Amino acid sequence: MQLQHFFKLYTSFLESETFKGSPKSLYESMNYIMSLGGKRIRPILVLAGFHIANKKQNPGSDLTNFDHALNLAHAIEIFHNFSLVHDDIMDAADLRRSKPTVHKKWDEPTAILSGDNLLIKAYQYLMRYQGPNKDRIIELFSETATLICEGQQEDMEFASNEQVSENDYLRMIRNKTAVLLGCALKMGALSTGISESDSEHFYDLAIDIGLQFQMMDDYLDAFGDSTNTGKTSGGDIAEGKKTWLYIKSTELSRDTKQWFNTPNPARIEMVQANWKNLQLDQMIIAKAKEFENKAIEQIKYLENKGYNLDIIKEIVEYLGGRTN
Amino acid sequence: MQLQHFFKLYTSFLESETFKGSPKSLYESMNYIMSLGGKRIRPILVLAGFHIANKKQNPGSDLTNFDHALNLAHAIEIFHNFSLVHDDIMDAADLRRSKPTVHKKWDEPTAILSGDNLLIKAYQYLMRYQGPNKDRIIELFSETATLICEGQQEDMEFASNEQVSENDYLRMIRNKTAVLLGCALKMGALSTGISESDSEHFYDLAIDIGLQFQMMDDYLDAFGDSTNTGKTSGGDIAEGKKTWLYIKSTELSRDTKQWFNTPNPARIEMVQANWKNLQLDQMIIAKAKEFENKAIEQIKYLENKGYNLDIIKEIVEYLGGRTN
Repeated sequence: MQLQHFFKLYTSFLESETFKGSPKSLYESMNYIMSLGGKRIRPILVLAGFHIANKKQNPGSDLTNFDHALNLAHAIEIFHNFSLVHDDIMDAADLRRSKPTVHKKWDEPTAILSGDNLLIKAYQYLMRYQGPNKDRIIELFSETATLICEGQQEDMEFASNEQVSENDYLRMIRNKTAVLLGCALKMGALSTGISESDSEHFYDLAIDIGLQFQMMDDYLDAFGDSTNTGKTSGGDIAEGKKTWLYIKSTELSRDTKQWFNTPNPARIEMVQANWKNLQLDQMIIAKAKEFENKAIEQIKYLENKGYNLDIIKEIVEYLGGRTN
Repeated sequence: MQLQHFFKLYTSFLESETFKGSPKSLYESMNYIMSLGGKRIRPILVLAGFHIANKKQNPGSDLTNFDHALNLAHAIEIFHNFSLVHDDIMDAADLRRSKPTVHKKWDEPTAILSGDNLLIKAYQYLMRYQGPNKDRIIELFSETATLICEGQQEDMEFASNEQVSENDYLRMIRNKTAVLLGCALKMGALSTGISESDSEHFYDLAIDIGLQFQMMDDYLDAFGDSTNTGKTSGGDIAEGKKTWLYIKSTELSRDTKQWFNTPNPARIEMVQANWKNLQLDQMIIAKAKEFENKAIEQIKYLENKGYNLDIIKEIVEYLGGRTN
C-alpha cells in the first residue's frame, strides 16, 4: 500500500518538525491544531503528485527520496491548519475534531496570532524547497491562498444573502475547499520539473475529486444512514448551513426556506421530506457523478500521457468513494 | 531632499498597485487600510537601505533604478498594514488614524480575512523581487514576521500580568515595533548584494532609532505639552497602557499601581505627579538617549566603512527627533 507509506512518511516528518518558540501559548496552540489529526489528505496529495510525475519524468532517479516534496507537503498542511484556526473564529465554532477550538482553549487574540504565525511558517517551508519550478510553485501557493480567503469571505457573505445561485455556490465551495487539493497535487507534480500544461491536469483532477466528495458529504449528511456515517443525519440542516441542497431547493420550491427558518424541532424531518419530494437526493448524487466523470476524464488523459495514476485510485478509496 | 523623493517614489508605486479582486468587501477593506496614510517610514527605510548600500557597493550602477527595491518596500508596507488590521481586532480599537478600523467599518470576519490576504500579498511582492540575496531577504522577512507575532502575543499577555520586568517589556516592544524597521533597512541594503555582516549594522541602526522614538513618544504622551504634540497629554495613562514608564514606576513605588486602577478622574494628574516625583521624566529621556547613542555608534561604524548615511539623518529629522 503506497498510500499507507505516504501517510507514515508525512506524519513522521510532522512529528519531527514541532514548532518551538516563545511565548509558550503561541507555540502550544500552533502545535495543538497541527496535532489534532485527520486524514492528512493534502500533504499526501503533494507526495502523490511528486511520486506520479517523478516516475515518468525522472525514471532513473531515486524514487524514494521525498526530501524536497516533504517541505512542500508540510507547507500545505500548515496552511490548511492556519485556515482552520481562523475559520473557527469566524464561524464561532467551539469544537474541531471533537476537541476545543484554539480560540476556545486559549482566546481569540491567541487564535488570530497562532494562525498568522502558521501562515508565515508555511512560507518558510516553501522557501526551504530547493528544486525545479520553485518560483512557480510559490506563486501557485499564493494564488491558491488568496482564492481560499475569497471563498471564505463569500461563504460569510452568503449567510446573510438570500440570492445565492447554484453557480455562486459552486464557485465559493471550489475556492474555499477544492483549490487547496488541486494546489497540493499540482505542486508535487511541478516539483519534478514537469511542464505547466501537464501539471494543470493534476490540478483539475484533484479539484474534481474534491468537489465530488463535497457533494457526497452533503448527501450523506442530509440523507445518510447514521449507522454508516457515524454522524446524526440532518446536521447541516440543524445548523442552518446553506449547502448545495439548500441553494438548489430554494430554486425549486418556496417551502424549504420557510421550514429552514422555523424553530420547530420537526423542521429537520420536514426539510428532508421536502428535499426527497423534490428528488434532490438523486440530483446531488448526479452532481457528484458529474465531478467524478470529470475526474475520470483527467485520469484517462494523464494515463494516455504515460503517467501511472494507481495512487490516485488508492486515495479516492481512502476518502471513502469509488473511482468507477 | 532625498527623503521627499523616496516618499513620492513609494506613494506613486503604492497608488499604481491597488488590489483588485472579488468579493468587493475583501479588496475594498485591503485598499482602505493601505490608503489611510501615515509617514510610510518602513518602505522609505527599504529604499534608504538600498540607496546607501548601492552607492558604495555598485558605484557605477544606475543609482536611480529602484524597481527591485520598490517590490520589497511594498511588501514591508503591506505586512505592516496586515498587522495593524489584526492588532486592531485584538485591541478592540475603534479608530485608526482618526478613521474607523476595518473590523468596525466592515466586520470581524472581513478584518481577519483582509489581514490574511494582505500577508499573502506581502509574500507575492517579495517573490517578485529578482536580485541578490533573494532567499536571505525572504528568510529575514519571515523571521521578522514571526518576532512581530511573538511581540504582539506578549503584549496581550502583559495586560493581565503584574510581574512584567523592564527587560521583558523592552524585548516585547522591540519585537512588536522595532524589528520591522530593522528588517526594512537591512532588506534594502541586502538587495544590493552587500554581506550579511555589514547588513547587520543596518539592522541594529534602525532598531535603535525605533526604540529611541518609542521612548520619546511615551515621554511626550505622559509629560508633553499638548499644544506641541497635538495629543491630549496622559492618553496612555487614561487607556491604562503599560508603557516603559508604568513598568519602571511599579519597580520604584507602589503608588502608581494603586492610582492606575482607580476610576478617579483625577488619576491621570496623580500618576503624572507621582512619575515626576520619581524623576521618571528624566529617566525615560535618558533611556531614549541610550538608544540614540547606540544608533550614533552604528552610524559612525558604517560611515567608517565608507557608507554615506545622510539619508538616515534626514529620516531621523522626519521622525521628529535629532541625530545629535
